[in-house]
Amino acid sequence: MSAGAAALPALGIDIGGTKVAGGVVAPDGTVVATARRATPGASVAETEDAIAAVVEELAAGHDGELVGVGVGAAGWFDRTGDTVLFSPHLAWRGSTLRADLGHRLRRPLWVGNDADAAAWAEYRYGAAQGSDLALMVTLGTGIGGGIVLDGRLQRGAHGIAGEWGHMRVVPDGRRCACGNRGCWEQYSSGNALGRAARELAASSPATAQRLLELVDGDARRLVGEHVARAATDGDPAAREIVTEVGTWLGQGIADLAAVLDPDVVVVGGGVSVLGELLLAPARAQLDRALPGRGYRPGPRVVAAELGPQAGLVGAADLVRDMVALRATPP
Amino acid sequence: MSAGAAALPALGIDIGGTKVAGGVVAPDGTVVATARRATPGASVAETEDAIAAVVEELAAGHDGELVGVGVGAAGWFDRTGDTVLFSPHLAWRGSTLRADLGHRLRRPLWVGNDADAAAWAEYRYGAAQGSDLALMVTLGTGIGGGIVLDGRLQRGAHGIAGEWGHMRVVPDGRRCACGNRGCWEQYSSGNALGRAARELAASSPATAQRLLELVDGDARRLVGEHVARAATDGDPAAREIVTEVGTWLGQGIADLAAVLDPDVVVVGGGVSVLGELLLAPARAQLDRALPGRGYRPGPRVVAAELGPQAGLVGAADLVRDMVALRATPP
Repeated sequence: MSAGAAALPALGIDIGGTKVAGGVVAPDGTVVATARRATPGASVAETEDAIAAVVEELAAGHDGELVGVGVGAAGWFDRTGDTVLFSPHLAWRGSTLRADLGHRLRRPLWVGNDADAAAWAEYRYGAAQGSDLALMVTLGTGIGGGIVLDGRLQRGAHGIAGEWGHMRVVPDGRRCACGNRGCWEQYSSGNALGRAARELAASSPATAQRLLELVDGDARRLVGEHVARAATDGDPAAREIVTEVGTWLGQGIADLAAVLDPDVVVVGGGVSVLGELLLAPARAQLDRALPGRGYRPGPRVVAAELGPQAGLVGAADLVRDMVALRATPP
Repeated sequence: MSAGAAALPALGIDIGGTKVAGGVVAPDGTVVATARRATPGASVAETEDAIAAVVEELAAGHDGELVGVGVGAAGWFDRTGDTVLFSPHLAWRGSTLRADLGHRLRRPLWVGNDADAAAWAEYRYGAAQGSDLALMVTLGTGIGGGIVLDGRLQRGAHGIAGEWGHMRVVPDGRRCACGNRGCWEQYSSGNALGRAARELAASSPATAQRLLELVDGDARRLVGEHVARAATDGDPAAREIVTEVGTWLGQGIADLAAVLDPDVVVVGGGVSVLGELLLAPARAQLDRALPGRGYRPGPRVVAAELGPQAGLVGAADLVRDMVALRATPP
């Protein structure tokens, strides 16, 4: 691979809980071709088969010029990217994903956390361009995160930095999938929206009327997407829920500002389709809660710009950087 | 100044709420001479007078060979170090400390946060040597912090990183000097020790008998130092209070591990004289609360090694580095 890697397209893969999405990403960040496969069982073998199928399909039209494959997944990777330590939605536990995929794909490979990849994409092509210290907060089922400091993705001493969804924000609070109680993502995420809607519908069906219409009156079926739809349509009950979740978002950002002092916090992930309905209460709480407010600047809180493709765009760019760096003469 | 700056002694200054302490620090981190002045009024002018007097006294014996003066203070500095944004114990608000001192001292000057300086000292000469990502937690009246990543002190986008004493750990919790409620330092600090002792003595004088003996029976006079003394002497009530404060320490470290994933957390400051009485419960809580525990490594939690001189040792080394860097040909 020549030092011209920086000028070639790369393949980015985003592994979700139920699907594998891939794209060919040009050096300017545009996605020039896409492919996807469902992974209904979400076993390790099925997921790896799906990745290989997506790579094969996309490579067919671009072979010879693809720099490599970048893979982002909702998991905790060690610092080298060799091992998936843990994944909340997939069956990886201490898995050698990179070696397995490397044998199969026989291409340069970057493997890492999906929110890290999204943070990198927003820094390179999106809302965090030019930042000295950018934090990404992805609001999906839970909260993911990534840190870009001085133009480098920061992954911590063991590869697991940015897992701020598991800061404890309420002692003895709500149970989290991680086993602890009171984690931030239990108060600010798609799951938090759904939970609040179900609670409201159970205790006050009249107030939750519009929400209940979306699920044929079955409160148990309410999830975050229903709240997002109703809030966007102007339903006051749904908007109240979004405001509460946005306020928790701002509180967590205030805590991150105390720890890291970023200049920008980019909010992405599925829940970020709510836009200002979510970000306005987040900024209001940040203004109330930022330590030292009045004496210091705080971070800008902005919407992600790259949408659901941020993860695959970032993963592609990270493998491109990796190859270009290796090709650079010392 | 020549590129030989790295081999020369530097002067370090630590500004506390009631005194200015200075030391001549050799390149190997040893303090070869010290001086101090009281600043009873803690006005800006008095503090600057005291700094100048300490510098004059120490320089008399070492002039011609001192690289510069490093000043660490309990304040929030902007990224350049030019401006003190805010100081909890001193009268600085948007003050141009560096320019004022620069005119007066006419020597190369580093000015910054005292916990940042202590973190740097522990990284260079103490408990964090060789770390990829070290966090310092200084437990004094409140909590200070510093971050050393990849061999560099990290101060955030605006100069205020590491202020984790003001993470909110309890919604609607105890009032903090910063104006917010529920800040970590209200639960794990010298102030927290004193508060718990006063509460105990007020509600159960029999249990707090030993503590009350230390203040002639006047519960209102109990402060952290009394708890530390009684706990060290083996008093069960004082040990219970230290265990509670240590448990909160471990919880906050777990939150920092979720955010930053450090390999080591160094605990310093006055309260750290409690040693294992404090650190053992902190480690126990970290083991219970670390997100992803069992699937990932966590940080080591260790006692600071440089004691109360860490701040001035670090400040001296930082001005030495600053001068050496400027003298390096491009």
